[in-house]
Formats: sequence, structure tokens, C-alpha cells
Amino acid sequence: MTGKLYGLGLGPGDPELITLKAHRILTGVPVVAYPAPDTGPSFARQIAAPYLGAHQQEVPIVVPMRVERFPAQEIYDQAAETLSRHLDAGLDVAVLCEGDPFFYGSFMYLFERLSGRYESEIVPGVSSMMAAAAALGRPLAARNDVLSVVPGPLDDEAMRARIDVAGAVAIIKVGRHFARVRALIEAMGLTDCAGYVERVSLAEQRVLPLASVPESVAPYFSMILIYKGGEGWNASLAAATE
Amino acid sequence: MTGKLYGLGLGPGDPELITLKAHRILTGVPVVAYPAPDTGPSFARQIAAPYLGAHQQEVPIVVPMRVERFPAQEIYDQAAETLSRHLDAGLDVAVLCEGDPFFYGSFMYLFERLSGRYESEIVPGVSSMMAAAAALGRPLAARNDVLSVVPGPLDDEAMRARIDVAGAVAIIKVGRHFARVRALIEAMGLTDCAGYVERVSLAEQRVLPLASVPESVAPYFSMILIYKGGEGWNASLAAATE
Repeated sequence: MTGKLYGLGLGPGDPELITLKAHRILTGVPVVAYPAPDTGPSFARQIAAPYLGAHQQEVPIVVPMRVERFPAQEIYDQAAETLSRHLDAGLDVAVLCEGDPFFYGSFMYLFERLSGRYESEIVPGVSSMMAAAAALGRPLAARNDVLSVVPGPLDDEAMRARIDVAGAVAIIKVGRHFARVRALIEAMGLTDCAGYVERVSLAEQRVLPLASVPESVAPYFSMILIYKGGEGWNASLAAATE
Repeated sequence: MTGKLYGLGLGPGDPELITLKAHRILTGVPVVAYPAPDTGPSFARQIAAPYLGAHQQEVPIVVPMRVERFPAQEIYDQAAETLSRHLDAGLDVAVLCEGDPFFYGSFMYLFERLSGRYESEIVPGVSSMMAAAAALGRPLAARNDVLSVVPGPLDDEAMRARIDVAGAVAIIKVGRHFARVRALIEAMGLTDCAGYVERVSLAEQRVLPLASVPESVAPYFSMILIYKGGEGWNASLAAATE
């Protein structure tokens, strides 16, 4: 009997925002793997830390933060090989995922390598996008709004086209693209409809109308939500976050 | 001291997919309110049922299922009035929400009426969209994909325009629009990239390639995900769900 592979969604950061199911699996598996940067702590492990036990074997998967454009195939090949040794030994393995495993997550690179050979299960998690709307005190989308999720690395032309046709927009992976994205939103006349959230649900969370953000750079874990009104609730975002 | 208002995201249906935080609040509040159809059980209450206690006062908010185009303002006015009596009496009130409270939820109609007068908190939940991707065994979106969330009631022209520019699409609120939406996806040549999920995470969940769905009608709690490939993982959906 080989072990089972879990992709565990841990939610946006607050350890209390993991699901009962993720908690049950997390505390029960013998092997816990997680992505880790080449320097500094693993965010996924930080979320799970209150629930990890000394009896569990930890497998960090070191992925350099700068590897953005293309996934580091060799890194995931090697990680899959490491995890397969545990699975072949009959041990269940939980891969910890920030937010939701299949919403722009790197877990897919392990899943595509291992799910054909081992029983696999994805446990969905609370996305940082939902948590950001909660923090802003505004619906992410409502009624017949079209919501577009737009990655920050998109160029201006592509991003403008997507924002133009959507009723609500979540710009994710803002990070080093912040100044450019903010300038585009300003040029489109949408700054007053835009909210900024960083490190959502953590103690150091910041929630601001976009117009009030003093910096010109943003951390990796930041997001901009735009609510153009449309059919939804029209109260001004600035008022909601005052 | 007035009570506090909570919008509690309960996740897609499996009671184990509620968060530890929602569980703590759900089991601690004296008053629990939830949307209920005019006939039949409340889905939100069903999700919460394992955790409700006899000491808790339940407040069903009866909303006719047919009220789709415009929210029934009088119903929410009256529900807000009912909840405000509990809040004024110093009792905390949790409003139960399927999925996430601010992702196309009706909780916003209570929130806009009450959040100005009472301390309020939204507890984000796992969206059925994330759970559907987990059930299909496919990423919802990856890398620099643009994900568009498109409500089923949109007309063909608007829906086609949104699908055209997105890398990944989640069509929600499919229900009685199923036959028309399927015909559009077929006309666009995207049927082989589309998966269908109904009653996700419940015992009666169904997961199928769209091409294999035998019926021409779908239940209210159904969704179609389209993954056009783009930059993401290109394995065929049909193979993944065989």
C-alpha cells in the first residue's frame, strides 16, 4: 500500500482560517511538505505551525522567490522524487499550500508529477482574495457582475483590456508591479473604486483605499480590488474603510 | 453594549470545510440567522447543522428562490429589523452564508443595512469555485492566467466576450441556463476544455467532463469550469476526470 498525497489549502494566513478538514489531515499525517524560500521562513509552514507535532517529518521544498516566469522544473522533479519515496513507503504526505492549492498555487507542479501514481486529494482553502474583500468590508462581486482575476505581471495593455470589461477586478501578485498598476488604475479613473490589502488576515494586515497608500512598492502578499459599481453595492470604498 | 454582527462563510457544503474560526463563532453566538427558501430546507443551515446547539435562537430569513433579478428589498429591510432587535439587546448574531459571504452572496444586503450601526465582521469561507477545481483535479488558474467568473444569466454575446479574453473561466449560477451555456461553449469549440460540477463537496456531488453530462437542465448549485490551456497545465480535462 502506497501513501496518499494531499494538497492542503491553509487559507490566507490566520491559522484560525484553516478548515476543520485541513486541520484533521494536517495533524494526522506523518509527513508534511511545504514550499520554502531560499532565505527566510516558509509562509505555508508559519500558518500550520500551531498544529504541527514533533512526531511529524517535515520536508521543505526550497523554491527561489525569483523563479517567477517559469517554474523550476528540476526543483519540482526533485521534490516529487523525494515525496514519492515517502509515498512508496506507505506514508501519507500533506503538501501545505497558502490560500487554495489550485488557485494560482505551485502545488499543481507536484500534483501533475504525482497524481497519476498515487491516490491524491485536494482540500480547498480560503483564498486571500475572499479574505481581502472581507477585510475591506466590501463584496468582491455580486449579482451578475463579471469578476476578473488579473495577475500583476500582465502588461498595461492586457491589464487595461481585462479591467475594461469586468464589473469587479482582483489584481493579485501585485508586489513589484505596484507603481505601474496604480498608475494604470489612476489613468483609467478607477482609483476611487480601488482598495489595497496587504498581508491579509495576519496581525500586520494593512487595509487602505488605494489612493491612501503612501509607498510606491508593495510586498509580495498584496492585492488590489476594484469594484466598478455595476449592479452591486454602490457605497464608496473610501467611506467603507475610513 | 450592542451585539456584534458576523457574516460567517461556511464553505461549499461539506460541514468539515468550515474554518476553525467560523466553527468557534458559530458554536458561541446566541443568535444564528440564515437564508431559507420559501419551501424546503435552508442549505446554509444544513451545512451548520452538526454544530448548532439547542440553546441557540434560530432566525430563518425566508427569501423566495425566484427573486433573482432584484433583491427583495422589503425582505431584507424586515430581516435587518429583526436582527437589529437581537443586536440592540446585546446579543451577537451570526448570519450563515454558503461559500464565502462576499462572493456573490446575499449577505451584502444585510451588511449594507446593519454594518453602519453595529460592529460587524466578515469571516471568509471556502468558495464552491475552489472546491469545484479540487473536485475536478485541475487548477482553477495558474501563473499569469486571467480568470473570469461569469454568472450564467449573462446573455450569449456578453458571455462570449468574457470567455474570449480569459485564460480560465468559472461559470456560476448555471442552473436553468445550462442548455444555452453549453451550446455557447460548444459553438466556441471549448467543450473539451470544460468540466461540470454539481453539489460540490456533498455526498451527492457529481463531477463530469461537460461533454458527458446527459441532462439538459442543471440544479441551482452547479458550475462549469473552462480551462483554455494558456500558460497553465495542459493535460486534458477529460483524462483527468476519467
